[in-house]
Amino acid sequence: MMEPTALESSKESARDAALSAAPGWQWSERPPSLFRRFQFGSYGQTRQFLDRLAEQSDALGVQPQNINFGTTYVNVTISASGPNLSESECRLAAELGRLATA
Amino acid sequence: MMEPTALESSKESARDAALSAAPGWQWSERPPSLFRRFQFGSYGQTRQFLDRLAEQSDALGVQPQNINFGTTYVNVTISASGPNLSESECRLAAELGRLATA
Repeated sequence: MMEPTALESSKESARDAALSAAPGWQWSERPPSLFRRFQFGSYGQTRQFLDRLAEQSDALGVQPQNINFGTTYVNVTISASGPNLSESECRLAAELGRLATA
Repeated sequence: MMEPTALESSKESARDAALSAAPGWQWSERPPSLFRRFQFGSYGQTRQFLDRLAEQSDALGVQPQNINFGTTYVNVTISASGPNLSESECRLAAELGRLATA
């Protein structure tokens, strides 16, 4: 079996670091991104989550690549603004995960 | 050429009514929907539009089927909650069009 190149192993560790910081999110490459679907019981809860998402986003200075929502769901994609997801980008994902399960 | 059935012509008039009430939107069927992409110069303008969209949505009691946004764009889909788009659904589309060009 061929040894992973230095680049491959650094990519893997970046992915593993992001996923351990933000459990419940899905990872994708090109660009490195975290994706998660949040489901809610009512439009009111969805709107509350969106408001708090905006607050966290402002506080961390991180703007999700895309937010896609309907009355009872919010799909969030956070993409790396650099070569890998930054600490703040991972923290936003982690905070949103906590918000949704709070 | 075959005459359109009563159903077909009522569908066409519903589509024409919606598009004349909400210029700049695209029409699609199943379900009858209006779609439009709004482009903005900054994340701040995007957020302002989203806030006002939420106000209009509350005021008219109409919740868009889907809102999909990034830092400088907002894609809005308003789908008929009944057999055809209601007056309020068309009004929300018209209001959003005015907001974006104001």
